[in-house]
Amino acid sequence: MQNTQRPSAMPIHKYRPFHEQINVHLPDRTWPDARITEAPRWCAVDLRDGNQALIDPMSPERKRVMFELLVSMGYKEIEVGFPSASQTDFDFVRQLIEENLIPDDVTIQVLTQAREHLIARTYESIAGAKQAIVHLYNSTSVLQREVVFRTDKQGIIDIALEGARLCRQFEKTIPDTKVYYEYSPESYTGTELEFAVDICNQVIEVFEPTPDRKVIINLPATVEMASPNVYADSIEWMSRHLAHRENVILSLHPHNDRGTAIAAAELGYMAGADRIEGCLFGNGERTGNVDIVALGINLFTQGIDPQIDFSDIDQVKRTVEYCNQLPVPERSPWAGDLVFTAFSGSHQDAIKKGFEAMAVRAEAEGVTVDDIEWAVPYLPIDPKDLGRSYEAVIRVNSQSGKGGVAYLLKADHAIDLPRKLQIEFSGVVQAKTDAEGGEVTSEQIWSIFNDEYLPAADTAAKWGRFELLATQTRSDMSGDVVLDVVLRDDDQQVSVSGNGNGPVAAFVEVLRGQGFDITVYDYVEHALSAGGDAQAAAYVELQVGDQRLWGVGIDGDISTASLKAIVSGVNRSIRTRQQELAAV
Amino acid sequence: MQNTQRPSAMPIHKYRPFHEQINVHLPDRTWPDARITEAPRWCAVDLRDGNQALIDPMSPERKRVMFELLVSMGYKEIEVGFPSASQTDFDFVRQLIEENLIPDDVTIQVLTQAREHLIARTYESIAGAKQAIVHLYNSTSVLQREVVFRTDKQGIIDIALEGARLCRQFEKTIPDTKVYYEYSPESYTGTELEFAVDICNQVIEVFEPTPDRKVIINLPATVEMASPNVYADSIEWMSRHLAHRENVILSLHPHNDRGTAIAAAELGYMAGADRIEGCLFGNGERTGNVDIVALGINLFTQGIDPQIDFSDIDQVKRTVEYCNQLPVPERSPWAGDLVFTAFSGSHQDAIKKGFEAMAVRAEAEGVTVDDIEWAVPYLPIDPKDLGRSYEAVIRVNSQSGKGGVAYLLKADHAIDLPRKLQIEFSGVVQAKTDAEGGEVTSEQIWSIFNDEYLPAADTAAKWGRFELLATQTRSDMSGDVVLDVVLRDDDQQVSVSGNGNGPVAAFVEVLRGQGFDITVYDYVEHALSAGGDAQAAAYVELQVGDQRLWGVGIDGDISTASLKAIVSGVNRSIRTRQQELAAV
Repeated sequence: MQNTQRPSAMPIHKYRPFHEQINVHLPDRTWPDARITEAPRWCAVDLRDGNQALIDPMSPERKRVMFELLVSMGYKEIEVGFPSASQTDFDFVRQLIEENLIPDDVTIQVLTQAREHLIARTYESIAGAKQAIVHLYNSTSVLQREVVFRTDKQGIIDIALEGARLCRQFEKTIPDTKVYYEYSPESYTGTELEFAVDICNQVIEVFEPTPDRKVIINLPATVEMASPNVYADSIEWMSRHLAHRENVILSLHPHNDRGTAIAAAELGYMAGADRIEGCLFGNGERTGNVDIVALGINLFTQGIDPQIDFSDIDQVKRTVEYCNQLPVPERSPWAGDLVFTAFSGSHQDAIKKGFEAMAVRAEAEGVTVDDIEWAVPYLPIDPKDLGRSYEAVIRVNSQSGKGGVAYLLKADHAIDLPRKLQIEFSGVVQAKTDAEGGEVTSEQIWSIFNDEYLPAADTAAKWGRFELLATQTRSDMSGDVVLDVVLRDDDQQVSVSGNGNGPVAAFVEVLRGQGFDITVYDYVEHALSAGGDAQAAAYVELQVGDQRLWGVGIDGDISTASLKAIVSGVNRSIRTRQQELAAV
Repeated sequence: MQNTQRPSAMPIHKYRPFHEQINVHLPDRTWPDARITEAPRWCAVDLRDGNQALIDPMSPERKRVMFELLVSMGYKEIEVGFPSASQTDFDFVRQLIEENLIPDDVTIQVLTQAREHLIARTYESIAGAKQAIVHLYNSTSVLQREVVFRTDKQGIIDIALEGARLCRQFEKTIPDTKVYYEYSPESYTGTELEFAVDICNQVIEVFEPTPDRKVIINLPATVEMASPNVYADSIEWMSRHLAHRENVILSLHPHNDRGTAIAAAELGYMAGADRIEGCLFGNGERTGNVDIVALGINLFTQGIDPQIDFSDIDQVKRTVEYCNQLPVPERSPWAGDLVFTAFSGSHQDAIKKGFEAMAVRAEAEGVTVDDIEWAVPYLPIDPKDLGRSYEAVIRVNSQSGKGGVAYLLKADHAIDLPRKLQIEFSGVVQAKTDAEGGEVTSEQIWSIFNDEYLPAADTAAKWGRFELLATQTRSDMSGDVVLDVVLRDDDQQVSVSGNGNGPVAAFVEVLRGQGFDITVYDYVEHALSAGGDAQAAAYVELQVGDQRLWGVGIDGDISTASLKAIVSGVNRSIRTRQQELAAV
């Protein structure tokens, strides 16, 4: 089997592999054997990195809604803006402080470049806060040094140190605010590791961290440049080489250019980081910041408390969509509209069986399904734990088989079709969807089911040749039953009788008298709900002439339901034959 | 700095960590040191796995458009459907074959379950094709064995082997078609590795692979259950233990439940896989299949030929959106509307400098920018390589600074503002955006610039107190110039003269005569285009009384442009003063 792929004409000569640009060498890495056992410190940067990447940045009102959402979910460190760069951001920080909107256990964070007038303005913005993180950054990558700052490494270090020293000075102007520090060598992923650790260590010395006042060193994948294992290697290397490591909170800030930010955050956290910065649903510059919803719920799937409340994910999603004025995509992990949806028949079938097995297991253990381990194929977690209903789990289209159809009939109408009837009916549904395309809703399935098997609800309309109008059963306890029925046969009313060991057998004889050669092959009946006035559903598999097919009857009287099911089967048989004749 | 995060009330007791479910132990893994140097074999499954996850599955017409797109991009293995499960799929496969739509170097692939009537139908569907891959699967996970199949390991092996043997039998019914085989232990990620390799190896024996007729063993992350390094470990383990490894094409099929499918594919490929199955832009069940666009372009960024043509990504995107009837999200890697967009001022500034540095470097080397290595901050690749314009790169909102504004004026109007004027004008723009919110288009920036600095294009409207109506310069070569000007001063016309060492100095003297104390601090001028009839733009930094500000003039005559720039500055000064007075 030949590989017939051919070179494309893409201009690969313009690009150099990452390892030729930046050397990350860590053959004795330990992170691939690490296991995550607890949540990192989270820092939500939706109001800064997220906000600056919006077509329509948040108004003060939308900013406040976002802040309150983040607080309510449990985020304790929240980057609220870049106050020295935007009057809106400045005003928002002032509003948070002056209107006392920051809970005591929440720390706001503000970003600033390492320049005096910006730092001055930054401290002005946070005056009066109980505590705040001043997040100082300057860009350190090879490319930015050459192209943007046109200076050497020492020049870049000087910018950082000068900024850090200015911070320490301005800190004295707001003695009532506990100021913590975060330093980011921005464009870290394009920076030589030796230089990155050098500049970080020099900045750390200026900030003089202590156990009570650790400094955050944040290593941003400002642009994601390599596969996530390389980022993890670099983080482990940095973690080994950072000065005063015990007093440093090592923080990650992955962007998603290559689509691997979630992996980079996870592997980087395994490699020794303590903290992760990101945005809800991965908003942020270009492809976005790392998605902290996905990261949190990924922990949850492993039985690890994310320390964030995701129990009403749809509400979170709606709020974020309002704030960002951008939709959360249909396939966004754990939150998109379609991420718990199975359209495929075999998936639906397995999910249905998984739900049933859980119910059986819970009952056997005398507990509810919420007390036992979640185990449903194709559903890595229980959508209910995120506040989602099961409605979206099973959706039927032309690719779906019996499982989904059967699931929806059971979930929404308590109709529990026997397996062979599931197959028959899914063929009916599929013929319709193959022809018309598109999704079939539960409502449409119910309507197709009614059209196919049940008399029209509107009694004026006549469904099929026969209709049961009245029945009477007599038994003299001899083991033989006499059944008198009044049937509508097209437009005529006929009264007929038959004998048998039960009403079904007697009715088969009645119909034989009308010219139908019928054998009953299978018969299943169940209540549609609990209680004395419950309806029952009966399913019969019939041989009618040379046709094998099912009929369905629903009635408050289980005996009548079974007779109706036979009528249903006979009527379907006649209808099929007429269609065949019409097609010839 | 305390960590104040608190336990959430999420029901973590329902979930068990992956490593307690499936044992993946590979301390001597080698993949973290591996480097990708060439493209994998790609298999696009948009028409099967992608299609079955659509709200509105593809019509025959949309199927055909998708097939043709995949072929045109260079995909050589294309899973075209599940013909035994859907009449539409069956008909589509027949159409491809009967209408000769499959190029000779493209191999179609069809999925089938391991059941006789489905296998029979599958071979019926591919009869007449030159070659085809029959993709046989059955589910092998612990959970599916227990809940769905209710059988033991041997029962599951029997299903697979029976299926494989039936395939070999039906193969004889279509001797003119070269049949290749793929086997997937579906739900592989939930399967014990020892069992997975056992069932694969037994199936391999039935398929009797040879160097010319290798068998594809596909290891799907049907549900993504653990971080991508664990998947990579498992792939390396499998690669070491598969029988006839030299005749096996090891294939990956990652889903994206945890948001790490791209990473799983990359690390799994590093771990020894040969082939990757996925969908364009990550369509597929739930969160989707792995995004083969992102994977391909990730290779491209490393100077590795993806062997797929991504040179018109917008066309690809539009076509996929038509076929899937689902939007490609704004932040989808390499393809979303926003992924090359910088709104942030510092990013825009750096991008502008990056473009300029590349132009300088190319010129120095006597080549075009397309011949040299791409190196622009915040733009990991040249959007042009994907057929995208630079238009979307710089977009301005209230979070943007001088860089973006300056870039747009230069890119769209050849206006190259001096740095200090960039700062002044970005303040003008930001005051507007902070107040009004939302994005500012290049057109709006141009209009704000005109309003602020240039006389109204409509000459009937009067812009500012002064307007230059006529000039005449006389020089007797003594080094002194006499300037006669006719000025509009509000509604009056005045003729005045002044002296200086040049027209600018002379005009300053003219204005001094009108009561304005002016000093010129900076003066920059450049042509707006090439050629003899080019317009010139002049920028002057003035001190007018106690105000320091810029003026701009545009004219075909460079001398007149500079005088207009001074008029512009003086008018702005007067306007500012009036606004200040009005505000008191």
